[in-house]
Amino acid sequence: MSTAPAAKRQKASTPDTPIDTSSAPYKLIYWPGLPGRGEHIRLVFEEAGVAYTDTALQDDAMQQVLDQISTKNLAVDGAPNVPPLAPPVLEHGGLVISQTANILMYLAPRLGLAPDTDSGDAGAIYRLNALVLTALDGLSNEVHDCHHPICTSLYYADQRAEAVRRSKEFVTQRLPKFLGYFERVLRVQAERDVANKWLYGARLTYADLVLFQCLDGTSHQFPRAVQQLRESGAYQRLFALYEAVKQRPNVAAYLASERRQSYGEGIYRYYKELDVVPDAEEA
Amino acid sequence: MSTAPAAKRQKASTPDTPIDTSSAPYKLIYWPGLPGRGEHIRLVFEEAGVAYTDTALQDDAMQQVLDQISTKNLAVDGAPNVPPLAPPVLEHGGLVISQTANILMYLAPRLGLAPDTDSGDAGAIYRLNALVLTALDGLSNEVHDCHHPICTSLYYADQRAEAVRRSKEFVTQRLPKFLGYFERVLRVQAERDVANKWLYGARLTYADLVLFQCLDGTSHQFPRAVQQLRESGAYQRLFALYEAVKQRPNVAAYLASERRQSYGEGIYRYYKELDVVPDAEEA
Repeated sequence: MSTAPAAKRQKASTPDTPIDTSSAPYKLIYWPGLPGRGEHIRLVFEEAGVAYTDTALQDDAMQQVLDQISTKNLAVDGAPNVPPLAPPVLEHGGLVISQTANILMYLAPRLGLAPDTDSGDAGAIYRLNALVLTALDGLSNEVHDCHHPICTSLYYADQRAEAVRRSKEFVTQRLPKFLGYFERVLRVQAERDVANKWLYGARLTYADLVLFQCLDGTSHQFPRAVQQLRESGAYQRLFALYEAVKQRPNVAAYLASERRQSYGEGIYRYYKELDVVPDAEEA
Repeated sequence: MSTAPAAKRQKASTPDTPIDTSSAPYKLIYWPGLPGRGEHIRLVFEEAGVAYTDTALQDDAMQQVLDQISTKNLAVDGAPNVPPLAPPVLEHGGLVISQTANILMYLAPRLGLAPDTDSGDAGAIYRLNALVLTALDGLSNEVHDCHHPICTSLYYADQRAEAVRRSKEFVTQRLPKFLGYFERVLRVQAERDVANKWLYGARLTYADLVLFQCLDGTSHQFPRAVQQLRESGAYQRLFALYEAVKQRPNVAAYLASERRQSYGEGIYRYYKELDVVPDAEEA
């Protein structure tokens, strides 16, 4: 896809005059040392080929996040911003916003990764946002909660038994449900036009990037389950999309770079005892 | 607030010409018999005084939801819609979208419950969406998972022990965190202007309605914990907002009507053994 980010931003800035987007730099504030929820935002910038600052790569990375989420942050900066509860946080020309799906919804039309509301498909951004929220629900939040089913503020070791039980249910009941859903969405698109291999229409959108990252992270946490489901052949369009995103030139270059961080103690974690496969009678 | 929904819709329809919003009816498709996630959407319509169809009140309520979420639903209806994984679903003039926060973000500017992007505060909708996603994360999804920590497809009785443990952690660690966050957001607003008693600026927005419903449901599930935290006096602005929303004439009339359904086997459930209070040493 030949994105033209600068032109897109110019265009998008017209109805948004009060937010200075024409030349403002993009700044992502996120935890250092893991891809996490910030990764969805990085992938959007990388695919679009748009310059951005990633505080995770800076020396004071941790402090920048802590300053944002501090209970002392009263968002006193001239603009009517709201303090964030948690990262990722995006700063852009006076606007400071949080929540992954929200940041993506703001960025994608500006970076050529979603139709503009004046594109002739005004509903597109809401259809895409629904897909993104669904992917984050099932393949990010629910996966995270498999290793922290009782409380995020307890250690994993203190909820291991519950984590094992939840993981077994997840890969048996929930994972096939979500993979099947996205496979069906892709089938709907292909039935509309054989050229449609993406989640929405004939061009890659940010929803495809989100689904790629969700699948990649879920595969890290549940490699055996994902492999087994992949080999079942029931999700061929979905895994084709995964490979197609991975091979996008900008995405491939990013994944091969040092900017792509390893999975660690983040959303997606590998624990041998959680690496289970779906119950045979259910799957 | 003197909302003028008809005029708002007219105005909003200009950039959205491909979606016929000028006279199209609003239709909410949601499970019958419980407020659930659909309640946030009902409250937006009710506060705005806008007519809408609620399939939960119709004879074939269950079937309408099942038709939407059926794996046979390929969204073949002329518009480039995407089949939903789960309700709530909104139909409006050819547009069919799912996901609570997404539907609200579509509706609120059209119904006068959020600034338009051409209002002079183009960033408002993203700030509001972040607040809404945060409220739904902490005071809807996390509360639901307190009674279903292992899997939504298992019975409560089969995960009661884990539910008790999670509920204790939730009311001790998480509930004060989320209440404290929204109290701080309200303090930020009041420090900007003493007239600001809502989450964003001087007028009620849809984020206030969402927070009201989240608090109401959380109070149903954890009455003792919410009462104790309320009586601590640490969240006075938050509970003042709760009461102020409850007393809005349209909201009050709705809550007193038969359209307001009782909490049952939905997101928010009362189980005596989960009705716990925060650990004293932590709270």
